[in-house]
Amino acid sequence: MRDFYSNYTNDELWLIRENKWVRSLQDIRESQFALGNGYLGTRGVLEEIPYDALPGMYVAGVYDKMGSQVAELVNLPNPVNFKFTIEGEKLDLIAMDCLEHKRILNMQKAVLLRHSVYQDTKKRRYDYQSLRFISRHNKNIGVMQIVFTPLDANCVVDINTGMETSVSNTGVLSEGRKRHFRVKELGQSHNAGYLVIDTLDKKQTIVYWAGFYYEIEGKKIFAKDNFFRLKIKKNQAVIFTKVFCLKHFPCRQNYALYKEKTFKIFHKAFHSDFDTLVREHTKTWERLWEKADILIEGTANLQNNLRFNIYHLLAHVHYDQGFSSIGARTLSGEGYHGHIFWDAEIFLMPFYLFNFPQVAKNMLLYRYRRINKARELAKKEGFRGAKFPWESADTGEEETPEWARDIDRTIIKIYTHKMEHHITADIAYAVYKYYVVTADEDFMQDYGYEVLFETARFWASRVEYNKKKRKYEIKHVIGPDEFRRNVDNNAYTNMLAKWNLITAYKLFCAIKKRPSLYKNLREKLDLREKEVSQWKKIAPRIAINFNKNKIIEEFDGYFKLRKIIPGQTDENGIPLLPLRIKAKNLGKTQLIKQADVLMLLYLLGDVFSLKTKVANYEFYIPRTLHKSSLSPSIHALMACEAGDLNRAYNLFNVSLRADISNLFGNTHEGIHAASLGGTWQVVVFGFAGVKVKKEELFINPRLPRTWRNMVFSLTWRGDLVKLELNNEQIKLKVISSQRKDLKVGIFNKLVSLKTNKIYVFKRSIPGYGKELYHY
Amino acid sequence: MRDFYSNYTNDELWLIRENKWVRSLQDIRESQFALGNGYLGTRGVLEEIPYDALPGMYVAGVYDKMGSQVAELVNLPNPVNFKFTIEGEKLDLIAMDCLEHKRILNMQKAVLLRHSVYQDTKKRRYDYQSLRFISRHNKNIGVMQIVFTPLDANCVVDINTGMETSVSNTGVLSEGRKRHFRVKELGQSHNAGYLVIDTLDKKQTIVYWAGFYYEIEGKKIFAKDNFFRLKIKKNQAVIFTKVFCLKHFPCRQNYALYKEKTFKIFHKAFHSDFDTLVREHTKTWERLWEKADILIEGTANLQNNLRFNIYHLLAHVHYDQGFSSIGARTLSGEGYHGHIFWDAEIFLMPFYLFNFPQVAKNMLLYRYRRINKARELAKKEGFRGAKFPWESADTGEEETPEWARDIDRTIIKIYTHKMEHHITADIAYAVYKYYVVTADEDFMQDYGYEVLFETARFWASRVEYNKKKRKYEIKHVIGPDEFRRNVDNNAYTNMLAKWNLITAYKLFCAIKKRPSLYKNLREKLDLREKEVSQWKKIAPRIAINFNKNKIIEEFDGYFKLRKIIPGQTDENGIPLLPLRIKAKNLGKTQLIKQADVLMLLYLLGDVFSLKTKVANYEFYIPRTLHKSSLSPSIHALMACEAGDLNRAYNLFNVSLRADISNLFGNTHEGIHAASLGGTWQVVVFGFAGVKVKKEELFINPRLPRTWRNMVFSLTWRGDLVKLELNNEQIKLKVISSQRKDLKVGIFNKLVSLKTNKIYVFKRSIPGYGKELYHY
Repeated sequence: MRDFYSNYTNDELWLIRENKWVRSLQDIRESQFALGNGYLGTRGVLEEIPYDALPGMYVAGVYDKMGSQVAELVNLPNPVNFKFTIEGEKLDLIAMDCLEHKRILNMQKAVLLRHSVYQDTKKRRYDYQSLRFISRHNKNIGVMQIVFTPLDANCVVDINTGMETSVSNTGVLSEGRKRHFRVKELGQSHNAGYLVIDTLDKKQTIVYWAGFYYEIEGKKIFAKDNFFRLKIKKNQAVIFTKVFCLKHFPCRQNYALYKEKTFKIFHKAFHSDFDTLVREHTKTWERLWEKADILIEGTANLQNNLRFNIYHLLAHVHYDQGFSSIGARTLSGEGYHGHIFWDAEIFLMPFYLFNFPQVAKNMLLYRYRRINKARELAKKEGFRGAKFPWESADTGEEETPEWARDIDRTIIKIYTHKMEHHITADIAYAVYKYYVVTADEDFMQDYGYEVLFETARFWASRVEYNKKKRKYEIKHVIGPDEFRRNVDNNAYTNMLAKWNLITAYKLFCAIKKRPSLYKNLREKLDLREKEVSQWKKIAPRIAINFNKNKIIEEFDGYFKLRKIIPGQTDENGIPLLPLRIKAKNLGKTQLIKQADVLMLLYLLGDVFSLKTKVANYEFYIPRTLHKSSLSPSIHALMACEAGDLNRAYNLFNVSLRADISNLFGNTHEGIHAASLGGTWQVVVFGFAGVKVKKEELFINPRLPRTWRNMVFSLTWRGDLVKLELNNEQIKLKVISSQRKDLKVGIFNKLVSLKTNKIYVFKRSIPGYGKELYHY
Repeated sequence: MRDFYSNYTNDELWLIRENKWVRSLQDIRESQFALGNGYLGTRGVLEEIPYDALPGMYVAGVYDKMGSQVAELVNLPNPVNFKFTIEGEKLDLIAMDCLEHKRILNMQKAVLLRHSVYQDTKKRRYDYQSLRFISRHNKNIGVMQIVFTPLDANCVVDINTGMETSVSNTGVLSEGRKRHFRVKELGQSHNAGYLVIDTLDKKQTIVYWAGFYYEIEGKKIFAKDNFFRLKIKKNQAVIFTKVFCLKHFPCRQNYALYKEKTFKIFHKAFHSDFDTLVREHTKTWERLWEKADILIEGTANLQNNLRFNIYHLLAHVHYDQGFSSIGARTLSGEGYHGHIFWDAEIFLMPFYLFNFPQVAKNMLLYRYRRINKARELAKKEGFRGAKFPWESADTGEEETPEWARDIDRTIIKIYTHKMEHHITADIAYAVYKYYVVTADEDFMQDYGYEVLFETARFWASRVEYNKKKRKYEIKHVIGPDEFRRNVDNNAYTNMLAKWNLITAYKLFCAIKKRPSLYKNLREKLDLREKEVSQWKKIAPRIAINFNKNKIIEEFDGYFKLRKIIPGQTDENGIPLLPLRIKAKNLGKTQLIKQADVLMLLYLLGDVFSLKTKVANYEFYIPRTLHKSSLSPSIHALMACEAGDLNRAYNLFNVSLRADISNLFGNTHEGIHAASLGGTWQVVVFGFAGVKVKKEELFINPRLPRTWRNMVFSLTWRGDLVKLELNNEQIKLKVISSQRKDLKVGIFNKLVSLKTNKIYVFKRSIPGYGKELYHY
């Protein structure tokens, strides 16, 4: 049988494969094989939608709340649906016998391929090949193609390829499956079908248009209906091509207008030819990869897995002026209802910041656009300024559910939104990082200063003065380590609040030199000099406890908790919870869920000495169970700093393979955004040793021994820095049309480089000792 | 362009790929892509033999000594040679421009594939595809096929495909390249070419026959000569098929007879068709894989790399009644001159023993056939019994070079053969293991007892009595840790000698019940009761030093050496030699090269308590630099015992990837046999937890968390044990025609199983604690 898509499967380093059909892995593959362009996201379901399939079609930022505790990313009608029935037998991996099956995600071209051979009960075989993509060139368009060939006999095929509206959000245990939309219009016109839906609660409208044509022996025939019967001869390959178009309208309904607008986009794509559509799509992806690819001369598996992480990051390159940001599970599944956590700013943003700064800006705009809701939230809880919600969806209100039902049906009360206040500082931190890396003054002027001042204001109202200790305290919080709630003076929270106050104060002083901006902001925010000088006073007196060995206490009383150091680890060095410890008692021990003090030492790396970092690393790492996808990457980064390359590499691999190997056991709920971004940070900040120190870019690689070379690029203040490095040598070129030179720290030494010129720097590296003769 | 060999490249899990041509990697690929059937071994050279290529064609057991210090595996004329020249331009990866290039080793079928697209200086392109295998069905036959298509113009091609006699052994630095054979006859007859060569020193004869035919537009034409000119039209695919036959005659020369004998074998294969030849070959490989494959539900990379290790082990499945054994670098390169070390018995043999016991027997027969030389060696050095050479080639004489020139031109004197005496006990150990696993009484009767008694006799003469200590000592040895020479009472050597004496004594007592065997052996070996009872007396009094923490001293005085614990490790946790330590001073420190005490604790696992093993593991592992491919696997195995799964997995990966990633930097000299066998031992004995305890088979898996399931089989006492297991469950079936039940230890408990019946055993496994909700 001819392989119709063989030109997509040449280079293994770009492919993710499913080599056989395993029903229990179906939902995991759907997440892994997700396609998207940042606006649209679809799960990698099989076209026939077999039993147990979880089709997912999402538009970034479209949430709905009807029938659920909190706003959910809406699972929209599934346009990928394409069913074949032959004399009553459905061509389906569960219904028929499948003699061969493979699927391949080509990450370079963002195309999902498939080849199955089916056999019906009469032992007649059918060859089935397909290709699918969500256009990167035109964000409203998706294209799919199926090549169907009966191998043993002529046959009559019934085809059904409507927009499948019987889809649902999976929902949490206590809510069950639900549909968040209502079908408003449905019909056929111009050889195509349309569907208009409204979301239930928010009344947002999404219009679909879809059509398909088939080619038999070179003749192209447009199908007039979604339901369709066709006679196909033995060994005759019929090519079905379906084009669909989705457009979302957040405003008041005018269905006729919406349908027309959407039809125009659809019509153009539908009457373009398939090759053009693919070419436009893949060309655009090429440009994404040009910026974002990281070549590592190491093992094929590493290169491939790293690209898997970058692929899913690229599938969310998207600029919608802050209409949406990126949820904890991206657009590849419904885990956490599609909500936005600090994962966005702290884990994901650095990748975009150094590759697609506009996306980073979009993510921050997402927060800025909802600052009024953050102000309301602060006010409601008795604070000043802006307090960002722990979980955020479309409106910017707090979307954390109050409770959830666990798998064993017990009710878990949820406290994160009431106490995990550090997110407000995390967002301020991200705004400032954006400023440092892009030097985007306009952004700061229009949005950035406001966020920094309003968050500082929040912290100034959030702290409590303890007269006895003569310190400011932040009580009743949850830190990143969520094994315990309601602690006082969580070091991470306190330190980031302190940083937030100081940074806001410094920026406030700096803009004094720009009178009109200064005046505008002061007026807009009703900001007095006195209030700001209060920030400066509070900051140094926010409590942080060190013990005599320079260990930072995670929160008040942590050192007094039961000391438990698990003796056993898994193969990646992750401590295993001793059997005698019950999950509910974890809070009484020193065991921690994820990076907390170390998270602080990572983010504020400039502030602490190496000695402090190493001491804390050594103290906390044997106590950390990594029960979160946010944990391994940060520990790998800290292990790099501490020179513990072995552990760095182990934990990096956990982060790298989190979803490709389903290491956290819940990849079916969607790809873990934090591990995507965390993995990238380990590679670039950890191993390649890229660092922003005192607002300058430094590079000091410490690659694993088996990584012989690494090629990548970074965007730094509007210029492209192209890098090729290993532990002995850094080759770089700064491509710029705006400046003549740039200072860059090479192997710890700041040097001035001319732009548009290739530099090669060498360092003499300690050898490994002469290899001894085997004799 | 049509892909002629696409049906060989479907399943990535079976493929090793070269995705582009990198000149500096050429010699590494040649080792990795080596083909062989145990009798013949060839390096994976490109057919055009580009500049820098190191063609290698070897016959197992054919060594020669002329012009070199020691006997060398002879690099024979290269039949794979196939050159195309187009109007004076050679189709060659270095000579012409190469637009595309890939090679794929299909490990399942043991077929090497290639696809290159060349462009000449006139910008005319040529498509070049090839396939090659060394027949597993007929050990004398090799087959290659090339499909050549000019893409841009008609062309005239000159073809040269003689048996390339201008090959040479690479030789060590002090000897340079040399040819170990003389061409005796050369000519054409019956549409084929022949070549008769003699090795220089040993006068062994190898006869070649080779012929080729080409197919144009379905017409098959036999070529009359090796040099040949052909006109080929644009886009005309010409298929060249070459069959070659090699046969080796170790006896007195009768060239006419040899030629005729070889011709008969050749003629049959040459006039069979290509498809039949491939089919016969791949069918036979299928049967090998059936026995030896290990399926692990983990990552694709793991499965693929593990198969790479097993593939190279399978390429040496070979039974020649002990004419040859397997060298330290297999037949894939000339490292260590193709010599046989203890790597064969201790690292490789377990794989064969549990999958192809006949190969294990062959390896032991290789030693037995040379026992007289071992007797001579013992006698020459003033000892009794049999002392096996440290390096062995064809004759069984000591083949270790006296000295070698290092890369920096310094002369290194070599002492291993003078002092690394443990090999004699290693061979005795392997004989006994063979006996336990196969229960092969015939082997013991004919060969095994003799080896055990003669080696025991050697040790009884080798020990020296120290009156003061009232202990027997073994002085002036080198242990497995080759960082120091001339030590006294190396624990590994002493303990294995002790084991050898006790085991020989026990077996001697046991055969008393078989009077005729007892009588025969006593007479043949002139063995008195008194001598044997002396073994029993010596054994318990051989010195082993423990300190108070149960740490075994590697040799007398080791504990007093400078204690150095390297602080830095590489990403796999391998300690890095501190810069202040010079290589020449390593012997003065406690740093060690490879497993020594731990090697002992691994091999004699039954003898020592877990506590002793763990204490020694923890003591020695931070002192071990793993400067040998023999080291990581043994430490991984000990780490499994010690419950240190993290390090086990790290070191397993080093062993697994030793050659696929060229981790030791010398894969170009051939595949490291010890890491092939060591890797298999870690998987089966370490992770799957297969163990022979008190002569019974035990299974107690401790798979890494990411290995969800493992399927494999073992041969145990003539029966096949089929296993499917994970940490919670063992499913097994004993397939037997000879017995009704078998005792097997399941999860540490001995149970009696009926044969030919499927059993499933479960254990409740400690969980990892309930996963906590992210909120």
